[in-house]
Amino acid sequence: MTEPLGVAMQLITDHLLEGRPVSGEEVALRVDQTLCQDATGTLVMQELDALGLDRVRTELSVQYVDHNILQSDERNAEDHLFLRSAAHRFGLWYSKPGNGVSHPVHMQRFGVPGKTLLGSDSHTCAGGALGMLAIGTGGLDVALAMAGEPYRLTMPQIWGIRLVGRLPDWVSAKDVILELLRRHGVKGALHRVLEYHGPGLEQLTAMDRHVIANMGAELGATASVFPADDAVRAFLAAEGREEDFRPVTAEPGCRYDLTDRVDLSALEPLVARPSSPGNVVPVSEVAGTPVGQVVIGSSANPGLRDFAVAAAMVHGRQTSAELSFDVNPSSREVLQDLMRTGAAFDLIAAGARIHQAGCLGCIGMGQAPAPGRNSLRTFPRNFPGRSGTLDDSVWLCSPETAAASALTGRITDPRAWALREGVQPPELDLPERACVNRLMLEAPLPPERARTVELVRGPNISALPDLDPLPDELSAPVLLKTGDDVSTDEISPAGAKALPYRSNLPKLADFTFTRIDPDYPARARESGTHLVVAGDNYGQGSSREHAAITPRLLGLRAVLAKSYARIHWQNLANFGVLALEFADPADYDRIEPGDRLTLPGLHRALAADADGHITAHNTTRDEEYRLTHRLSPSQRRAVLAGGTIPALAGTVRSAA
Amino acid sequence: MTEPLGVAMQLITDHLLEGRPVSGEEVALRVDQTLCQDATGTLVMQELDALGLDRVRTELSVQYVDHNILQSDERNAEDHLFLRSAAHRFGLWYSKPGNGVSHPVHMQRFGVPGKTLLGSDSHTCAGGALGMLAIGTGGLDVALAMAGEPYRLTMPQIWGIRLVGRLPDWVSAKDVILELLRRHGVKGALHRVLEYHGPGLEQLTAMDRHVIANMGAELGATASVFPADDAVRAFLAAEGREEDFRPVTAEPGCRYDLTDRVDLSALEPLVARPSSPGNVVPVSEVAGTPVGQVVIGSSANPGLRDFAVAAAMVHGRQTSAELSFDVNPSSREVLQDLMRTGAAFDLIAAGARIHQAGCLGCIGMGQAPAPGRNSLRTFPRNFPGRSGTLDDSVWLCSPETAAASALTGRITDPRAWALREGVQPPELDLPERACVNRLMLEAPLPPERARTVELVRGPNISALPDLDPLPDELSAPVLLKTGDDVSTDEISPAGAKALPYRSNLPKLADFTFTRIDPDYPARARESGTHLVVAGDNYGQGSSREHAAITPRLLGLRAVLAKSYARIHWQNLANFGVLALEFADPADYDRIEPGDRLTLPGLHRALAADADGHITAHNTTRDEEYRLTHRLSPSQRRAVLAGGTIPALAGTVRSAA
Repeated sequence: MTEPLGVAMQLITDHLLEGRPVSGEEVALRVDQTLCQDATGTLVMQELDALGLDRVRTELSVQYVDHNILQSDERNAEDHLFLRSAAHRFGLWYSKPGNGVSHPVHMQRFGVPGKTLLGSDSHTCAGGALGMLAIGTGGLDVALAMAGEPYRLTMPQIWGIRLVGRLPDWVSAKDVILELLRRHGVKGALHRVLEYHGPGLEQLTAMDRHVIANMGAELGATASVFPADDAVRAFLAAEGREEDFRPVTAEPGCRYDLTDRVDLSALEPLVARPSSPGNVVPVSEVAGTPVGQVVIGSSANPGLRDFAVAAAMVHGRQTSAELSFDVNPSSREVLQDLMRTGAAFDLIAAGARIHQAGCLGCIGMGQAPAPGRNSLRTFPRNFPGRSGTLDDSVWLCSPETAAASALTGRITDPRAWALREGVQPPELDLPERACVNRLMLEAPLPPERARTVELVRGPNISALPDLDPLPDELSAPVLLKTGDDVSTDEISPAGAKALPYRSNLPKLADFTFTRIDPDYPARARESGTHLVVAGDNYGQGSSREHAAITPRLLGLRAVLAKSYARIHWQNLANFGVLALEFADPADYDRIEPGDRLTLPGLHRALAADADGHITAHNTTRDEEYRLTHRLSPSQRRAVLAGGTIPALAGTVRSAA
Repeated sequence: MTEPLGVAMQLITDHLLEGRPVSGEEVALRVDQTLCQDATGTLVMQELDALGLDRVRTELSVQYVDHNILQSDERNAEDHLFLRSAAHRFGLWYSKPGNGVSHPVHMQRFGVPGKTLLGSDSHTCAGGALGMLAIGTGGLDVALAMAGEPYRLTMPQIWGIRLVGRLPDWVSAKDVILELLRRHGVKGALHRVLEYHGPGLEQLTAMDRHVIANMGAELGATASVFPADDAVRAFLAAEGREEDFRPVTAEPGCRYDLTDRVDLSALEPLVARPSSPGNVVPVSEVAGTPVGQVVIGSSANPGLRDFAVAAAMVHGRQTSAELSFDVNPSSREVLQDLMRTGAAFDLIAAGARIHQAGCLGCIGMGQAPAPGRNSLRTFPRNFPGRSGTLDDSVWLCSPETAAASALTGRITDPRAWALREGVQPPELDLPERACVNRLMLEAPLPPERARTVELVRGPNISALPDLDPLPDELSAPVLLKTGDDVSTDEISPAGAKALPYRSNLPKLADFTFTRIDPDYPARARESGTHLVVAGDNYGQGSSREHAAITPRLLGLRAVLAKSYARIHWQNLANFGVLALEFADPADYDRIEPGDRLTLPGLHRALAADADGHITAHNTTRDEEYRLTHRLSPSQRRAVLAGGTIPALAGTVRSAA
């Protein structure tokens, strides 16, 4: 008799190609679908080219354009041409700028229960809402998956989250994930897959589940999964894709490695204070704080319902003159539905600035708030400076809290607002069938046509750099020492200034770490080979592999940290940067910037049979530190070779 | 018996405070209304502060925010806060970001037939559509008008344009103004006011007339005027402002200084080729040219009808996959009307990216096209690089031509498209009453409250510079020699890179002339006092006074040109730069960059009774050139004092 399996374990075992699904062991999974967005995709497409791929080998791969759509100069449009040509060349779907944010669009048009989805965007995990195993990772991992390679990861623990009760009025899905962040913080789900189950699921639509699954990234989770049940069937039917439904549900009696329980009835409106998604408090605790900007939209609240509830609340009212009320439709489909239901009209009548469908302010492409003013957003992240404003003050909340606050000009508990105004919770009359429109999606070209396509490489699109192998001994200075929870936004910023250089690595390198230390690029160029020392959860947030490549271009060869966020840790290995952990976290305090460290015997320490221990000598202080790495066999090969591409050189091409 | 007067002469004589309305003489006019937009307004508000103004003395003044609304970093939002505080302080209306482009919004909400309107935006002339005398000029002139000073200008010639016949199918107002540009070029109306009259007017709505009046700026006209007739009454009624109507019509038998005649029946779809609005050819001549971007919107095609006709053409069809189809609603009102009529839905369904209401790509704030690709726009201008893309290729056309081309992916004559597709001209069912919404307009504060308002000056908002008087003798090198028709976009670029520094003059100075000569700022900083030599129509285009201030900050004291565009010529005087013309245009060819020139006896030459002649000695080549200035008495005083603000120092404040 086999043990009953939960949804996550079913998805894993169904796709297991190598290894045992035992927490801590390396497993290799078959990848059915991939997605890329434009900010990470330009590198992925160059990696496909470097790998010599002829055509993607997944069931379905999509290149979205949702990040760089302001087009402040010619570079963004140049990227779009390049990506479109690459999608044509390699057999991907291409989603044009204006079609919307990858995660909701993928869910609307392509997601299929029971499948695996690998994406070069950290919020790819949103796909778990459909009963998929959806994992965000570095671009090179996605490129390899498109080339037919399995996705290798250390088997995570499965964390069952039981939902019971019913959400009270004015409390919604966003408050559920904020509650988990309140409990567990931004590293609470590292090396874990969250599996939601229990009677509370019944109240949550597939798009509500998207809200919760999406921000699993903020907990550090590898993935978030929901069952594919009637709510998923209803969603796919509304999207005209009922035939793509297949049930995926937990087998009765299945067990989880860890468990937690959320009583939905006991939740209240929550808000994450600046500048971490983990700084969660009840809205009532900060009510009255003045607000200069309110933004709704993003992959963290992308559903028609999320906009419609805000529209119903502001209908016939006027948002505060003290603030800018910005609405970012998450997809063309949602925008069309907002128009035909009249919700878009109501939003604009109340003072909204409606923007094109895309990520926009969520990744710092426009909508930067005024300095010294609070910005309240339904977004997933509020890392320092991510908004485009230095010393910004960004708060994260539900659409209900956002709309109430937009009306009053102050952070407002929607329950208190409703009570004061005598307003009942809106009964939303949403269309049964979504306004499906596939016309901004280009299907893959047939192979014979695809082979004739030339990549359109503009002058801003640099080639991938050559990466040299790891020396046996590193002797280098510590150029930077960071605190805990440094995000990839701080390592390699996005935003309107840096994102246009996404395809120009030497230029992008000039932005590396500048939010923490403006002199780092100059110092690194002078020093060459160097080290960085970091605290806990190093590299949280966005999956951008630029955060591994650009420091590497500047000479970074090893990071010594207390712990790492999953995706960045993998990206470091992919680009030949050795990610080491302190055996004794107290050693972190003993190293100062400028200290010179020597790490000998690296080749031996990365051999397949080595125990993963390395000793660092601090020659400045004459101290020694015990370090470990948790690299898998394939990662060891990559780091030794200088990166995954040199490690694989020829192997993928020859398989073609 | 007095001579019968046309509309323009009625408007001028009704507002004449000093001088005789005889072409070439200086007149001073009473200013009833003013408008500023944000890109020019931050300086205007600082000028009001420098002038010590307590409260505006016009009937109505409005501060719009329509240019800098992408907010790539904190500077734009900081400008918005400053502008709002200044509007509150000085008694202006404030139009929030998202409310729309100044010109259509002003026409919808504030324009009144028979009034004068002075605006710190070159397209202010659009107001002539309502039977106003509406003039675009430098910010300081507008500041002075708000301070109660009359507007002084050299009395222009009045050019009567008689419209006869009826526009054929698929030909619209944009083709009328393109026809005038085809005939007369970008300096064809310098020192002239265009007055449209004749039976052809009957077919043109007030918004159609806006299209024509707006692009009078591209002809170099001082203003464009239309009568206030039934079409204007109907427009004001649709806007809920019929009580603001008063008829202003030409007296029978009135005469014009010059005349022209346009037979509307004989027009065909026209397009301005890159990179000048004067490069006009029939669309049929360039049909088939591939297009990578189509944009509709801007103050040059702002009416509901302009968007609705495009929506009707693309309805049920799909725009080409080869291009980006961008729609910039011109105002919140138009966007709401597009939504309630379903036109916005149709545009999006056909593949449009709908953006927030504002100027956007028209002033290079986003929407930069890909290099090497043609961009077809319903905008007023296509000066080189204004789109944000170096070596751009921007074409200007009507919404009909834009929509047909968006569908085919190639420049397409809408008549040919309609014939091929069997399409009849759309019968637009536009609402009789516009979707009036004043809620994004803040009314002026009452004086007692206004006086307590502090200006919100963020760190990016620099003070106005001190300007020193003109020396009696200038001896300086020629640092730059330009060709004809250099636009203020080339002198002081707008666009996403430079516009955020609109309020930071020292930083903005780094962009001066860089589209022509990237080294100019460095060379000028090294040289200090210097000269620029230019061809014809120097300083055409935008009214931005930054194009006078930033070269002045870098040391520019005199320009020697064949001729000047009106607004920039006035701005140079306002900021103490001596604008000289060659008595013999052939002398232009004798001077080379690097030559050193000496201009002696300037104080005498600028005295009230002087004849305006100056001799320049080229000490490098040992040559002499005869130069003239056309400065009015008030301009002479300004140039001698170093600028209008030092010339007026104390006089306005003491009058308060």
